[in-house]
Amino acid sequence: MPKDYHDDPRLATIVNTSQGDYPVIVGSGTVSDIGEYMRQLGISGRAFLLADYCMFPVLVRQLHEALESGGYETNALIIELGEARKTLKTAARIYEWLAKLRAERIDCLVAMGGGVTSDIVGYVAATWLRGVPVVHVPTTLASMVDASIGGKTAVNLPAGKNLVGAFKQPKLVLDDIDLLKTLGARELASGWAEAVKHALILDAELLDLFESSAAEITDLSTALAVDVIRRSVRIKAEIVSADEFETGDQRVLLNYGHTIGHAIEAITEYGKFLHGEAVSVGMMVAAHIAARLGMIDDELVDRQRALLQRYDLPVSAAGLCPDELIAATKLDKKSRSGNIRWVLLEGPGLATTRSDVPEEVVRSALAQVVT
Amino acid sequence: MPKDYHDDPRLATIVNTSQGDYPVIVGSGTVSDIGEYMRQLGISGRAFLLADYCMFPVLVRQLHEALESGGYETNALIIELGEARKTLKTAARIYEWLAKLRAERIDCLVAMGGGVTSDIVGYVAATWLRGVPVVHVPTTLASMVDASIGGKTAVNLPAGKNLVGAFKQPKLVLDDIDLLKTLGARELASGWAEAVKHALILDAELLDLFESSAAEITDLSTALAVDVIRRSVRIKAEIVSADEFETGDQRVLLNYGHTIGHAIEAITEYGKFLHGEAVSVGMMVAAHIAARLGMIDDELVDRQRALLQRYDLPVSAAGLCPDELIAATKLDKKSRSGNIRWVLLEGPGLATTRSDVPEEVVRSALAQVVT
Repeated sequence: MPKDYHDDPRLATIVNTSQGDYPVIVGSGTVSDIGEYMRQLGISGRAFLLADYCMFPVLVRQLHEALESGGYETNALIIELGEARKTLKTAARIYEWLAKLRAERIDCLVAMGGGVTSDIVGYVAATWLRGVPVVHVPTTLASMVDASIGGKTAVNLPAGKNLVGAFKQPKLVLDDIDLLKTLGARELASGWAEAVKHALILDAELLDLFESSAAEITDLSTALAVDVIRRSVRIKAEIVSADEFETGDQRVLLNYGHTIGHAIEAITEYGKFLHGEAVSVGMMVAAHIAARLGMIDDELVDRQRALLQRYDLPVSAAGLCPDELIAATKLDKKSRSGNIRWVLLEGPGLATTRSDVPEEVVRSALAQVVT
Repeated sequence: MPKDYHDDPRLATIVNTSQGDYPVIVGSGTVSDIGEYMRQLGISGRAFLLADYCMFPVLVRQLHEALESGGYETNALIIELGEARKTLKTAARIYEWLAKLRAERIDCLVAMGGGVTSDIVGYVAATWLRGVPVVHVPTTLASMVDASIGGKTAVNLPAGKNLVGAFKQPKLVLDDIDLLKTLGARELASGWAEAVKHALILDAELLDLFESSAAEITDLSTALAVDVIRRSVRIKAEIVSADEFETGDQRVLLNYGHTIGHAIEAITEYGKFLHGEAVSVGMMVAAHIAARLGMIDDELVDRQRALLQRYDLPVSAAGLCPDELIAATKLDKKSRSGNIRWVLLEGPGLATTRSDVPEEVVRSALAQVVT
């Protein structure tokens, strides 16, 4: 690999934040170069590898060895994560491990896993000794194109999801496409939901590509697959760079499909739909809302439906109660004072927000999609 | 009060940080104007007042009423804090309260108490919903001139003090001198230790003032007392503005007296010395080290001793074991790989750091002060 990661063809983008700039690397077999990337980024201490225990041990070992052979003294903790374990208690267990090994401010956490892993390890990195460096090695597509980028970290409380957290930007996001080959079909599809979402809200050209080359893209071993992942990563990175703390009007666009998506997850108690699946259904509800408001025509609704189906995503969900869904959207922490800010399309690759959507329009869209 | 806090004569300083600039107000009766300050600073949500339960209820009520009459819908939680309660468990209890009341990102925490209060409430403010505004209303002198300024927040773990935390800058620090009148003599003296420390390390002129006008200053009701507190606050603020994350060479200077001070607190299990008292003894050890290294003459050592005594601070401590103290300094989290970075004087109002102090010099200084 090149002596300067800026010259690396695998560099997808650089995210610019108040906590520093960092590269997102996307390629095949990138894990073996982790030590070289970390050195180029000035990380000098020990590495503390935290991996979700549902990872294949051989993959964790590979990363461990790559860190060691890259010159980093490495300790590893394999820990049961998952949404139900994304708690202050799990954070406390990790703190305890770091304390025992006397992890210092120059040391670096390395998080290997999906979105829950980057959430909780990122949170620990934000708070251990008031902040230590963290590197994300996402192992799911959803985490590669979404969760690992942008510094949102969190743990759940009994009172609600993600109520406690911090903005903690990583030093490096290292996406190794090879890791995706162990994912199940549903989990992979769930990841495509976020990637396709980026195209739907912001990149009409990428949208065309997702439509025209689905077979080549979902194959994953093609150069085109890597290319669209890089492009999707770039969209997320641009939004984060422009609106780091979600105080502007950009970052909220990433919530396309998420208002109903979160509601679906909540009323099914996170046990029935993968996140991307719920978002896919949520995007269909949002598309119907936009069509009913005259913002888009039915053709775009149909186009979105066909696209999501092409990536094996659900575009409807039977048996969900509209009243429950609507109640759940009102509890979402982003709906300040019950006034829901909907992310809606105005055209292909063009999203905006609307806070004036009448409830009957939502009900009518829900009737079309979820019952 | 003026329509713009920049024109307020009670404005001690403005702290400049990556999380925004904020004023420190120092004066008598400032609490009654809290609503006006908060409005000028653009705080728009509700107020969540967190007060240490050892506060006089009348003072908490005063602040509560000032917030309400200042136009802020206010909820209050009086909670047992103190060093032993500075835990993740206490943070979790506060999160639960905030969740129950559905505190949102625009809402503001108001912390009333000493250094432990600003530490833990600041930490909760850093992590609730990934960060909400916080205002500090310190009620101890130590917190006014030191702990409430600079954004260091933390909780303790069983494995050690302040191991978990965040840098969370407040929106406002409101020092009301009247609150100090309820403090006990030892606690007040402990606060002067930090104020005097600022003069010793950085401001020879303020040092002269502390020496020449001790009676007037310790009286607290004089204009001069308020003035020296403002000047001490300004020193802390300048250091924080120049070296926000303690990555440079400035912020570490604030640790003058703290290497031995922390060790004294640790080996006496935080039960015998107030923090400022331990720091006072620690400053005497540091002065002797500097004298032995030829950095300062004995006259400055004597001058510092007389000054600390004038502010009712201990300048020696009998019966502490030098071996235990030295072992404790090596465990301090700032001593990377056992290499202790001492803050030492080179002259009045002039501090520097040295990492090459021979252990026998430390032992000899300890022999003079703590045995």
